[in-house]
Amino acid sequence: MEKEDLILAHQRIKPYIHDTAILSSKYINKIVGANLLFKCENFQKMGAFKMRGATNAILQLTDAQKKKGVVTHSSGNFAQALSLAAQSIGVKAFIVMPSNSTQSKKDAVRGYGADILECEPTLKARETSAEEIQQKEGATFIHPSNNIDVILGQGTACKEFLEKQPDLEYLFVPVGGGGLIAGTALSALYFGNNCKVIGAEPCEADDAYRSLQSGVIESNISTNTIADGLKTELGDINFPIIQKHVDRIICVTEEEIISAMRLLWERLKIVVEPSSAVALASVIKESHLFSNKNIGIIISGGNVDLHKLPF
Amino acid sequence: MEKEDLILAHQRIKPYIHDTAILSSKYINKIVGANLLFKCENFQKMGAFKMRGATNAILQLTDAQKKKGVVTHSSGNFAQALSLAAQSIGVKAFIVMPSNSTQSKKDAVRGYGADILECEPTLKARETSAEEIQQKEGATFIHPSNNIDVILGQGTACKEFLEKQPDLEYLFVPVGGGGLIAGTALSALYFGNNCKVIGAEPCEADDAYRSLQSGVIESNISTNTIADGLKTELGDINFPIIQKHVDRIICVTEEEIISAMRLLWERLKIVVEPSSAVALASVIKESHLFSNKNIGIIISGGNVDLHKLPF
Repeated sequence: MEKEDLILAHQRIKPYIHDTAILSSKYINKIVGANLLFKCENFQKMGAFKMRGATNAILQLTDAQKKKGVVTHSSGNFAQALSLAAQSIGVKAFIVMPSNSTQSKKDAVRGYGADILECEPTLKARETSAEEIQQKEGATFIHPSNNIDVILGQGTACKEFLEKQPDLEYLFVPVGGGGLIAGTALSALYFGNNCKVIGAEPCEADDAYRSLQSGVIESNISTNTIADGLKTELGDINFPIIQKHVDRIICVTEEEIISAMRLLWERLKIVVEPSSAVALASVIKESHLFSNKNIGIIISGGNVDLHKLPF
Repeated sequence: MEKEDLILAHQRIKPYIHDTAILSSKYINKIVGANLLFKCENFQKMGAFKMRGATNAILQLTDAQKKKGVVTHSSGNFAQALSLAAQSIGVKAFIVMPSNSTQSKKDAVRGYGADILECEPTLKARETSAEEIQQKEGATFIHPSNNIDVILGQGTACKEFLEKQPDLEYLFVPVGGGGLIAGTALSALYFGNNCKVIGAEPCEADDAYRSLQSGVIESNISTNTIADGLKTELGDINFPIIQKHVDRIICVTEEEIISAMRLLWERLKIVVEPSSAVALASVIKESHLFSNKNIGIIISGGNVDLHKLPF
């Protein structure tokens, strides 16, 4: 992937996305002993950075493909992202969702005009259902993270960030399926000034940490984490990018995630989902390594059930 | 007050405040049937617009006055605002707080380096304690809302808003002591393009609504509202400005406030205090009057106890 690919992706999706705000807190800076800036993708359309990748992937389809629609399987933010992106562009979306998805998530997807297909809550059943839709409808499958156009779309958040804050020395992002961190690593490479990218993972879903150690894609042993957006695993398209361009991955405990989430709510006055707090938690955990540095954090999303707060 | 006074106030306080973000939500626009923009003073330093007025008032003191410090009585955001503004400028602050103030509020004020003087939780006791400090320390009393420099400082939020969004046709702000709405009315007059200012009050603390009806400053009959920042009453400096330049005041029920607060949390992904939701609640209540209009709302603050949410 070249610099030009990111520039074109950004131009392509600009009419469909928000250039999200960047916030800071003196109080959090004091705690960390560094200068932290937060790029608030929780303010992005549908409430998460995934709108960027979904939009870019759909816009890259041919007219013939667009006519037949898109399909994905997701119980989380990518379901909403693909639905809204498809609606905005005027394309039909089919979303395979596990039968145990919460009603609010199904309602959100339906609200964006997508067709929901329920399946058993297993990866196998999801994949089979998605394949059936591809065959029956001729819809194009768009993977939530292991797709180069999705990766390039996610990378535009970092591009915007560095355009406004060119002096960032580190960029922290949470790692789930790997789309955000791969896109961020490419953007930091092309638009940063020697800006290092660090991934953040729950100890309870540390597949990316172990994958970087072993050199092959590892699976999660447990996914017993409040950061429900980070339970997914790396793919063969994003992993080589991560291997090549990500500095390291820091793992944090559930307590560290909840404590960082609370700081973001109380001090930045923003509603963020637990997955978003993982990046700040990792900076706080290893703050001795980043003393007085200019640190950017991408707040990944804000879709959280207000009735289920951990504090 | 002239246009020039607001321009000078803004120049004066700029190094001490954030130019806060403006957010929007398509979903909320659909509900109201208008184009709503939210100026997020919950992202302001110490979490509320009051930082603006407090800073302007202190910066207007003579060097001799600054040496002797400032004093106010407040159990809410102005206590924190005056403390932080004083600390930033290098002035001593004395804050009279009722003995039943929550520990977290006292901690915040102390954290900004102010001296706290506890008194009985009555207005009389507060005023007496503040007068004692004025006499003993020679400190200058700064009223939270009935002070022209405070009013001008609060008006800078609207000035910033209109500089970025000159086409606003209406500006909605919550009304407590009247400082924000008086400042907003002046800014809208001088920097707006025929932009009308509308106040929003809880039905449970509707002194400003009744004051505009009767033509004299009325007291609250009840203050049984979740919007704890709006229990205070108008003063003789801000009331004439409000009378002259505010279009009308809309009152909303507690249910309407909580419902609007929830919309702000869920859709804008921001942490706001109940007082901030009163303005949106009033737009929703009377939405038939504002169809397709460009409406600005000042989100007044985000200092809320996460353990005491109404949802």
